[in-house]
Amino acid sequence: MTGNSLTDTSSGLYFKDHSQEWLVRAQKQISYEVRLRDGIFRPECTDLLEQGAGTSDRARRFIVVDRNVELMHGDRIRSYFEFHGFDYSIMVVEANETLKNLDTATRIVSELDTFGVARRKEPLIVIGGGVLMDIVGLAASLYRRGAPFVRVPTTLIGLVDAGVGVKTGVNFNGHKNRLGTYTPADLTLLDRQFLGTLDRRHIGNGLAEILKIALIKDRALFGSLEEYGPTLLDEKFQGVSAAGDRAARSVLHSAIHGMLDELQPNLWEATLERCVDYGHTFSPTVEMRALPELLHGEAVCVDMALTTVIAWRRGLLTEAERDRIFAVMSLLELPSWHPILDPEVLVNALQDTVRHRDGLQRLPLPVGIGDVTFVNDVTPGELQAAVAVQQELGDARLPKASGEQAVRDR
Amino acid sequence: MTGNSLTDTSSGLYFKDHSQEWLVRAQKQISYEVRLRDGIFRPECTDLLEQGAGTSDRARRFIVVDRNVELMHGDRIRSYFEFHGFDYSIMVVEANETLKNLDTATRIVSELDTFGVARRKEPLIVIGGGVLMDIVGLAASLYRRGAPFVRVPTTLIGLVDAGVGVKTGVNFNGHKNRLGTYTPADLTLLDRQFLGTLDRRHIGNGLAEILKIALIKDRALFGSLEEYGPTLLDEKFQGVSAAGDRAARSVLHSAIHGMLDELQPNLWEATLERCVDYGHTFSPTVEMRALPELLHGEAVCVDMALTTVIAWRRGLLTEAERDRIFAVMSLLELPSWHPILDPEVLVNALQDTVRHRDGLQRLPLPVGIGDVTFVNDVTPGELQAAVAVQQELGDARLPKASGEQAVRDR
Repeated sequence: MTGNSLTDTSSGLYFKDHSQEWLVRAQKQISYEVRLRDGIFRPECTDLLEQGAGTSDRARRFIVVDRNVELMHGDRIRSYFEFHGFDYSIMVVEANETLKNLDTATRIVSELDTFGVARRKEPLIVIGGGVLMDIVGLAASLYRRGAPFVRVPTTLIGLVDAGVGVKTGVNFNGHKNRLGTYTPADLTLLDRQFLGTLDRRHIGNGLAEILKIALIKDRALFGSLEEYGPTLLDEKFQGVSAAGDRAARSVLHSAIHGMLDELQPNLWEATLERCVDYGHTFSPTVEMRALPELLHGEAVCVDMALTTVIAWRRGLLTEAERDRIFAVMSLLELPSWHPILDPEVLVNALQDTVRHRDGLQRLPLPVGIGDVTFVNDVTPGELQAAVAVQQELGDARLPKASGEQAVRDR
Repeated sequence: MTGNSLTDTSSGLYFKDHSQEWLVRAQKQISYEVRLRDGIFRPECTDLLEQGAGTSDRARRFIVVDRNVELMHGDRIRSYFEFHGFDYSIMVVEANETLKNLDTATRIVSELDTFGVARRKEPLIVIGGGVLMDIVGLAASLYRRGAPFVRVPTTLIGLVDAGVGVKTGVNFNGHKNRLGTYTPADLTLLDRQFLGTLDRRHIGNGLAEILKIALIKDRALFGSLEEYGPTLLDEKFQGVSAAGDRAARSVLHSAIHGMLDELQPNLWEATLERCVDYGHTFSPTVEMRALPELLHGEAVCVDMALTTVIAWRRGLLTEAERDRIFAVMSLLELPSWHPILDPEVLVNALQDTVRHRDGLQRLPLPVGIGDVTFVNDVTPGELQAAVAVQQELGDARLPKASGEQAVRDR
C-alpha cells in the first residue's frame, strides 16, 4: 500500500476509490543490438555465439533457415556450428508471403518445443529473408511468452527493414501482418555478403525500402540512389569496384541508421503518425490482392508513386521533383504502376488503413525530397485523379526472369 | 547520433564499434486497472463504458462471452449494451482446457476482424472464466500487434488469479500455456455477483489459488480460510449472512491484493523465482495429463500438497503445520492427492519446469504458514519419498456431481 501520488508515472501498485480499485504501473526496459558484420560464418567471427549461454556442457541452439538459404549456404552454416561444438538443430522452412501464416509459425514452435531449449539463455536463430524473420519473431515471442532470438537477414529488404525493427507478424484473413507482436530480436547481424547470391529483382525490392527512407528524411541518400542505383543493382552491394563499395557501405549505413532513428522513439507505435509508414498506406491491400505477383518492396514502390502524385497535386512537390522520383524508381527497376490500382481498391485499402491507424488516415506524404507531412483528408475523387496521372507517368515493369523463385524470399 | 554514455540505461539510439553497431534502448510504460464492483450490468454502472471511445456516432464493441455465461447472463448483457446505445456484436465461445488452443484464438480474431474495430479506441470485452480470458487476451494481444481489451471474469479463479495479472496464453503440444504473451487488459472488473451462479466445485477451484497466496505470504488469510472456508463454499461469496459477507469481501480483497503485490514488481517475469509459482511446478503436467478430470485449481492443490510434504520433510514446516494445511484443503473440498502422481511423471514434470525456469528448479516451498523459500536440489528419490507420504495423508476427492459441466469453465 504505497503512498505515491497518482499523478506521477512511477512504477508501483496504487489504491483508488476507497481500496475498491487498484492501479498497476510498471516500466519494461528493452534493448537490442544491430551489427554490421561481413562474413559472419567465418570460424573466427564469434558474434553469433556471444548471445545466450549454455545450460550444460554443450550449448544448444535451434536454427531456422530459409530453404533458398539452405541451398546456398547450408554447408557453411553447419560447419560453423560444428566447428564451435554446438548441439544444434536446423529446421529448413520455405517462406513467402503466401506461407506467412500462423500454421508456419506453429510448425516452427512445435519443432522448437520438441528440440527443447532453456527458456532464456538458448536463443533461437533465424537465417533468411524478411518474411521468415517476421514469422520466427512471432514464434519466438509466443513461445513460453517470449524466447530470445537472433536474426540474420539474408535479403536486402531484410537488412534494411524487417531486420532492424521490433515487429513480428503473419498475414491473416487476407490482411497483411494482421497478427503479430512488437518483440525485438536480442541481436541482429547484418552481413551484406548474403546479397551476392540474391537475384537482381530482390536487390531492387530492398532498394524500394531504402528509397522510402530517402524520400521522407534523407535527401543525400536520394542523391546516392540517383547516382549509384544501377551500380548497386549490378554489384549487389558486394563492392566489386571501389566506388561501388563506398556507395554500398554508405547507402546501407544511411538506410539502417535512418530507419532506427525513426523507430527508436516510437518502438510500440504509441504515435500512429509514422513517417516510416510512407508507402505502406495502400500497399498492404495492393500486395495481398496481387499475390504472388508483387514483392513487398515493389508494392511499397507502387504506393510511393501514387502518393508522390497526390503530394504533387497538392503542391507539396514540384513537377521536377515528382519526375525525379519516378525516374529513380525506374533506375532502380521498380514498378511505379500496377493494373490492380483501380479507385475502388484504393478506397477500400484506405478504409482498412484508417482502422489500423485508429480512425484517421494519418497519410504520410513527401514534402519536396527528404521531408514529410501527414494528411487526413484524402477523398475518393482525389485518389481517382491521382491514379490517372500515375498510370500516365508510371511503369508496370516487373522482371519476368525471376518467376517462382522470386516469390519465395522477400 | 547521441553522446549518452553506454553505462546508463536511458532510452536512445547509440553507436558502438566505430559505427558498425547500433544499440537501441527504450522503455515501455504500462498501466492497468482492476476494480471491484457489484452488479456491473446495472444500467447506472458505467465502468464498462468508460474504457475506449467511439469512432463515429455509435461506439462499437466486440464482446466475447463464455457459453455458460451466455445461458445465465446473456439477456442482461444484451440489455446493458442496448440501453447504452452501443453497436455491438456478441460472440459466444465454449471454453475449457481442451479448447484452450490457437484454433479457438484464431476463430475469435477472425470474427473480430470481420466485425471491424478501430485499432486502439474500441476495446474487445471478454466475459467468462480464466480459460476464456487467457484465450481472448492472446487474441487481443496479437490482433494488429495489440488491441485494447477489458476483462470481466465470471469465476472465482478468474477473479483472484487469471483476471488480475498480465499473462495470456493457450495450451500447445500437450503443454499448458506453452504459447502466450504478457499483455495487460486495460481494465478488469471484478464482480462477485457472478459467483452466485457457479457450482460448488468451481468455488473450491478458486479457493485453491487463494490458499496459495495464503500459504506463501498471508498467514491471516490462511486463518480466514480455516474459519470461513465452508461458509464461503455455502454462500458462494454472495454475503447471505453478515459474517459470510465480511469474510467474502475480506478474503477476496486480500487474495487480489496479495497477488497484485507479487506481480507488479515482476510483471514480465524478469526474475523466475516467483512465489506465485507455488503450486505450479508439477501441476502443469499433472493437469494436462489428467485432462479433463482436474480443474486448474485442483491440480494446483495437488501440487501444493506434495510440496507441503517436501517442505515438512526438509524441516521447513512442523508436522502440526503440515496437518493444518492438509486439513484446510479438505475443508475447501479440494483434492490433495491424485493417482497420476507417480514418481516418473513427477520427474518429467520437474524437468519441463526446469526448462521453463531457464535451467534451475527455482521450486517455491512454504516456510511455516505464510512464508516461502526457493530450492534447486530436489532429487527423484526425495520426490518418491514425499509422494508416498502424500498418498497416505491426502484425499483424492473430486466432486462427482459436476461432471462434464465442470470442465467447461475453470
